[in-house]
Amino acid sequence: MNSNTIEDMAEVRQTRTATVMAAIRGRLAARTLAPGDRLPSIRRFAALMGVSPATVVEAYDRLVAEGLIRARQGSGFYVTGGGLPPLSLAQAETARERAVDPFWVSRQSLDADPAALKPGCGWLPADWMPGDALRRGFRALARSSDAVLADYGGTLGSPVLRRLLLGRFAEEGLSTGPEQLLLTGSGTQALDLICRFLLRPGDTVLVDDPCYFNFQALLRAHQLRVLGVPYTPTGPDVAAFEALAARERPRLYITNSGLHNPTGASLTPQTAYRVLSAAAACAMTIVEDEIFADFEPEPSARLAVLDGLDRVIRIGSFSKTLSASVRCGYIAARADWIEGLVDLQVATSFGGQSPVAAELVAGILAGGNYRKHMEELRRRLAQARRDVAARLAPLGIRPWLMPRGGFYLWCHLPDGIDSAELARFALSREVVLAPGNVFSISQGAAGFMRFNVAQSRDPRLIEVLREAMAGLHAGSVAAAGPG
Amino acid sequence: MNSNTIEDMAEVRQTRTATVMAAIRGRLAARTLAPGDRLPSIRRFAALMGVSPATVVEAYDRLVAEGLIRARQGSGFYVTGGGLPPLSLAQAETARERAVDPFWVSRQSLDADPAALKPGCGWLPADWMPGDALRRGFRALARSSDAVLADYGGTLGSPVLRRLLLGRFAEEGLSTGPEQLLLTGSGTQALDLICRFLLRPGDTVLVDDPCYFNFQALLRAHQLRVLGVPYTPTGPDVAAFEALAARERPRLYITNSGLHNPTGASLTPQTAYRVLSAAAACAMTIVEDEIFADFEPEPSARLAVLDGLDRVIRIGSFSKTLSASVRCGYIAARADWIEGLVDLQVATSFGGQSPVAAELVAGILAGGNYRKHMEELRRRLAQARRDVAARLAPLGIRPWLMPRGGFYLWCHLPDGIDSAELARFALSREVVLAPGNVFSISQGAAGFMRFNVAQSRDPRLIEVLREAMAGLHAGSVAAAGPG
Repeated sequence: MNSNTIEDMAEVRQTRTATVMAAIRGRLAARTLAPGDRLPSIRRFAALMGVSPATVVEAYDRLVAEGLIRARQGSGFYVTGGGLPPLSLAQAETARERAVDPFWVSRQSLDADPAALKPGCGWLPADWMPGDALRRGFRALARSSDAVLADYGGTLGSPVLRRLLLGRFAEEGLSTGPEQLLLTGSGTQALDLICRFLLRPGDTVLVDDPCYFNFQALLRAHQLRVLGVPYTPTGPDVAAFEALAARERPRLYITNSGLHNPTGASLTPQTAYRVLSAAAACAMTIVEDEIFADFEPEPSARLAVLDGLDRVIRIGSFSKTLSASVRCGYIAARADWIEGLVDLQVATSFGGQSPVAAELVAGILAGGNYRKHMEELRRRLAQARRDVAARLAPLGIRPWLMPRGGFYLWCHLPDGIDSAELARFALSREVVLAPGNVFSISQGAAGFMRFNVAQSRDPRLIEVLREAMAGLHAGSVAAAGPG
Repeated sequence: MNSNTIEDMAEVRQTRTATVMAAIRGRLAARTLAPGDRLPSIRRFAALMGVSPATVVEAYDRLVAEGLIRARQGSGFYVTGGGLPPLSLAQAETARERAVDPFWVSRQSLDADPAALKPGCGWLPADWMPGDALRRGFRALARSSDAVLADYGGTLGSPVLRRLLLGRFAEEGLSTGPEQLLLTGSGTQALDLICRFLLRPGDTVLVDDPCYFNFQALLRAHQLRVLGVPYTPTGPDVAAFEALAARERPRLYITNSGLHNPTGASLTPQTAYRVLSAAAACAMTIVEDEIFADFEPEPSARLAVLDGLDRVIRIGSFSKTLSASVRCGYIAARADWIEGLVDLQVATSFGGQSPVAAELVAGILAGGNYRKHMEELRRRLAQARRDVAARLAPLGIRPWLMPRGGFYLWCHLPDGIDSAELARFALSREVVLAPGNVFSISQGAAGFMRFNVAQSRDPRLIEVLREAMAGLHAGSVAAAGPG
């Protein structure tokens, strides 16, 4: 880029023009610029991209020639809606080079080589899951009726599993009717259906900062405006929540109350009360995701229980406790909403829940072994949390708090270490990490890393972390890392 | 309503105002009126609803008071976006009373009493499905690894099933790479992902008229503009298709080429060529749904094969041939589209396909018994098509054409019989029918009914049809039917 011949200057100009065009195309593909929207002004975009206004003018002119945008006399450039690229949620080149964004951890974890270490992933190792119970469950399915094996099943999902869940809710003090419970393909699909049902593009949604990274990916797919509430050891920061609720009138707040992902904190009754009151004051709906509920030693405060499923919707699944391969989720909500959600599920996945999956889950939940399996898991995880924390401590990596359950430790890194750079380096050594900012809407968690303690037992992890941190301290990671 | 006292007149006026308000609320819930949209003018809406302009003024004023709409000086009323009701795809009261629309057949079929007859449903009876193979499959799953039983699996889905499908496509002359094939939760979810990926609310989509009713429900959930192409015994009406393509520039056309649902017709090579050419001329994408492919005695023309998966996307599932309880679908498309669809599937259903479902399907497809099962099904269905046609003939109910495969007969009813009224009557006798207009975007199929021959063997069906048609002819159905 230091060339000073005329040809080289022209080439640099060409490259910069292409970069500006790619940036606009990226926004069109990601739908942050939609048909009819005004493009950033020449001056502002030039400043943002660090190029001259002439470069932006040239880029916009070419996009006009391509029909993607058009100029309006004296008022700037606008998106035409012609030839728009398909929706793209991540502007990726190859899997490894893509940005460290919410998709990064998902795809690296799901598609990792079996030999890779995955301390960044969001589930337990397969050999921690109840293999014997699953095997008995499949043998039992082999003996079930033709209808269970081959039919779609009813629109609300298996009555057996729904009855079991309603019984469990009642034990918590949440009394719910069968018309308030719908089975879905997975916990993520439950949230997806709710977003489709209650929200429209541009609506405002609150999430915790930090929060489960796929909430952000999902909300981005719905083209929503997402705001973050700082998360504290007792739940969301109440003053911030109240201020955002009053000022921004969000339609929805999505949270995990028990064993919050990624921090492992749990909501206190006082915070629950104030959050629910603030939501009621501005007619906000709350989705409470119960995916980690069974990892708690005893239940903590729940918004759904306090509210009685009026403005709170409960969702959950069995992917963390039984199997992520047998997919099954649920939604508990007001009966009139369930009725609308059924139509939406019929339209978008016809029938929704897999009856054999629901049958299998119901069989395991009903058996006495499920309680024993969870007790054993909680015991192993308590030990693993202590062990992993002890092994990370000498590296200066320390938990933000020690969770009362679950498999996550949300850790501070030593000063000056950027978790995204650390994760890129680790990936070059076949170690998938979950860097802080993929969880943070404000991008304020660069100094944090989430560790899954059940996936962090291999000594190689500590070696790779030590090597990476030495490199980052020495400023040499740019050379050592994959780019 | 013939009252002439002042009190009664006031009451009538109140009722009419409420009716107008409900009509507007329904449009808001169905999103045919969105925030920022202008409401119909007072005069036009009064004419449409058959009320006085004063009634519409009163209704609009009350909706203003509720904050749903607001007046703009001299320019009419606009939707505010405040307090909007959740998305509603059907304005239903109770399941039985709801409108005979695309959801009617889905929900009646899925939630029917086991004792009900379901000639209107879209799947085979459970005892026609390969129960032994499914049972063997579940026993085999009980012996599989912890990883298959408990892990999420890769983002593209089971490599074993994908390899099998690619092999089958190659036998048809469709050579496809592994990066072009994505497993999904179901065939419907495949189409849902594609709509999210390629389309935005308001885009224009072509479907066949008649077409599978759930295509309409799904497209309505995406808030798309749906146009119908008349379907002929050789495929879509080519002249109409060409005219619509040129005039309306639709983004997408969705069709079943082999054994079209509901007509049972199949696309001819000449029609395939002209449809593909017209689509190419206006940069239209085509989704070809292969759900009935294995029911054809030998393969007919396919748009995907002709096109080589450039602008045609192939989708399919195993719900009709193996099991609707074990859910598994797929998308075959351009590699760059698959890459974007993977992100979207991760965001909206995390991991997507159930690995155990894919494993089970792969095991059955790979075994030699699948071919035998399908041969046997084709033989039974050929017999059932002849038998059911022969039993319907004395009632004056005659197939539009005799399909070369599959389980549907698309039948003309005798003149003057409305299929929706017939279906309402039948439902009061616990018989679920599929009336023509639920398949028809133009609502031009009131004189048709789709019969599933495998679900039409009970003699009670003929009795109920005879009783209903006698009643309809005598004009007495309003009294006999459920309302």
